[in-house]
Amino acid sequence: MGGADLEHLTGLLARLPGLGPRSARRIVLKLLREKETALLPLAQALQTAAMSVRTCSVCGNLDAKDPCAICTEPLRDAQICVVEGVADLWALERAHVYRGRYHVLGGTLSALAGHRPEDLAIDPLLQRLKAGDIKEVILALPATVDGAATSHYLISILKQFEVPISRLAQGVPVGGTLEVLDEGTLATALRARSAA
Amino acid sequence: MGGADLEHLTGLLARLPGLGPRSARRIVLKLLREKETALLPLAQALQTAAMSVRTCSVCGNLDAKDPCAICTEPLRDAQICVVEGVADLWALERAHVYRGRYHVLGGTLSALAGHRPEDLAIDPLLQRLKAGDIKEVILALPATVDGAATSHYLISILKQFEVPISRLAQGVPVGGTLEVLDEGTLATALRARSAA
Repeated sequence: MGGADLEHLTGLLARLPGLGPRSARRIVLKLLREKETALLPLAQALQTAAMSVRTCSVCGNLDAKDPCAICTEPLRDAQICVVEGVADLWALERAHVYRGRYHVLGGTLSALAGHRPEDLAIDPLLQRLKAGDIKEVILALPATVDGAATSHYLISILKQFEVPISRLAQGVPVGGTLEVLDEGTLATALRARSAA
Repeated sequence: MGGADLEHLTGLLARLPGLGPRSARRIVLKLLREKETALLPLAQALQTAAMSVRTCSVCGNLDAKDPCAICTEPLRDAQICVVEGVADLWALERAHVYRGRYHVLGGTLSALAGHRPEDLAIDPLLQRLKAGDIKEVILALPATVDGAATSHYLISILKQFEVPISRLAQGVPVGGTLEVLDEGTLATALRARSAA
């Protein structure tokens, strides 16, 4: 390879999800061939993201503002959609079928992985329900064993607020995560959500 | 998505070879989760590469120095291995079976793509042969129709120098490019190279 700088850059790229040494080298060559239009803009965009993007202290979304653009948007419905991660929030936003707010749990309960309730953003969710005028909580957790266990746990805790709780319909494939679903399936599952 | 900065960053990543919108989003989330250990080092490495890496004026390799580390290494054999691109040079270096120098053509002749001899770094190659004490030219071009046509063209031009010309052996799979070969196949093809 052409020098320590390129080895270092290739190594960093190869550690990213979905990439390996070979695809990292292909990317490095493409970036160097298009220095002005690809490499420098990417370096700048990463720098900007590092400086500007933070976690929303209300819902857990990533945005340049805190609270995030969704939390500060006045016309959103008084619903909270509870998701496992930011990728799931983005997937729902791309589907353009939901106009409420979100709450990012930061994971699901898992005996195997050792994720306990206090490891998830459950307490902030309770605070939001205590404080706010929320008309519905939609549980949009993955259709996995851990996701179902987390939903059950949340339902048992959220009962006290006498707010309607619903779940995404069974359109979500068993074992699948929201992030990789097509927007049609997401839309169907959201529309056909059932009372929990 | 979380704001214009993240949209922009995702868009830039999605245009890289092997990536699309979905894998770009996964990478962005991973980078933001590991800001100090992944995002900032990558931004810095891209910046460094943009500043330091240039094309070697002798052989066409990419390196922080011009002439590159290979061209200035005193103990390299007096051979020139002619390759289509920098990725092929790197692949041969990784195989650790060749100890000579290189010449990056920057493409192959192609009637379809409209690549003519004057579009390739053929003239600099002739200059190197005129100037230097070169004992062998090894043609390591892809085993494609265009690669074979380019080898034939180079053989006809290089005849005047009365330097031995060889080609990689037929171990290179037909239709394949060097970049994706495993190192064993590359080594075999190099050892079994035949006089052209």
